[in-house]
Amino acid sequence: MSTNALDYPKPVTDLIARLKRLPGIGPRSAERIALWLVQSPDAAPQELAGALTAVATSVEVCQECGFFLDARRCANCESPRQASGIVCVVEQPTDVLPIERSGAYGGSYHVLGGRLAPLDGIGPEDLRIKRLLERVRAGEYTEVLLALGGDVEGEATASYLAGLLGPYDVRVTRIAQGLPVGSDLGHADSLTIGRAIEHRFALGAQPAQA
Amino acid sequence: MSTNALDYPKPVTDLIARLKRLPGIGPRSAERIALWLVQSPDAAPQELAGALTAVATSVEVCQECGFFLDARRCANCESPRQASGIVCVVEQPTDVLPIERSGAYGGSYHVLGGRLAPLDGIGPEDLRIKRLLERVRAGEYTEVLLALGGDVEGEATASYLAGLLGPYDVRVTRIAQGLPVGSDLGHADSLTIGRAIEHRFALGAQPAQA
Repeated sequence: MSTNALDYPKPVTDLIARLKRLPGIGPRSAERIALWLVQSPDAAPQELAGALTAVATSVEVCQECGFFLDARRCANCESPRQASGIVCVVEQPTDVLPIERSGAYGGSYHVLGGRLAPLDGIGPEDLRIKRLLERVRAGEYTEVLLALGGDVEGEATASYLAGLLGPYDVRVTRIAQGLPVGSDLGHADSLTIGRAIEHRFALGAQPAQA
Repeated sequence: MSTNALDYPKPVTDLIARLKRLPGIGPRSAERIALWLVQSPDAAPQELAGALTAVATSVEVCQECGFFLDARRCANCESPRQASGIVCVVEQPTDVLPIERSGAYGGSYHVLGGRLAPLDGIGPEDLRIKRLLERVRAGEYTEVLLALGGDVEGEATASYLAGLLGPYDVRVTRIAQGLPVGSDLGHADSLTIGRAIEHRFALGAQPAQA
């Protein structure tokens, strides 16, 4: 049969195309979400549009520490955390919240904005390293805790920063690698078990950053 | 440690809350998408906002057939499909595209807007049935193909419509139930196999709606 196939109206196909670009959203999810937004009485496409516009126009990054600014104020830089003398160095602003949720850390943060990845053309000058060194040099911190990823680039970035920080009177620490809480030896890979043994500590001893 | 935990800026938490309401998006996906929209240079939150506004303001439903209007025109009602004399009755406008994609149908559509579900308070007066009967009565169609779901409510709705259409000079058909193409007997449930046997057809015979 030769009639032209029916299709969704153009605004709907446009919306599907936009949704498909979001991370983790495939073509079928995009279609499902778009049609839900069109059809469901509970859907509020205008409100979602408003939330997107608010994010696009008002969320900025703190030039000082790399965390998000909220109404041009930085909750990290303005909090009493700076007085703790400890700064936790992370790759992305999104790494801050998981650490906050752990409840195990109360110092300030410094967001690099990435990690060294020479193959992707990301070198030291692309990361927020200069300001960190200036503050360390000014004696603002007694400890720099490197909370970078446990993969090759994370390790390389941590080694590079440890080298830069060597000349200063500051304690440089690194988050521990070991078995995840609740997991058993049978499910852990041998590299993780190796690190857990290497980083073993005496029972009753205080963990490094307490 | 007692400092207030850092959190994302309010526009970001608002966006996460909005995204979480979308079908199939959990809290972690919502957070991931929101932060991608904030951080990725490829993200275009403003364009997505525009696409949502376009959908919210310009997509309407055809009062005649229940399919989507595009710029106030109905591709279903205005196409030469109406001249085919066959109308395919579906539950939702979203059921039209899968049928179109099969390439096996070239007639027009009529969207009920739901199906009978007395337990949810959905009765015949909540569905677009009156206009269908008017057009059948006016002799516009020679065949009404009921393409409703194969579940209890779909079956009940099909039976109800078949009863209403009985008095008119129109052929009432129903899409076949049977084994999915490419699937084998070992993976089919016994109800489906039962229907496939019940709806068996002589080799060389024409399918009903050809």
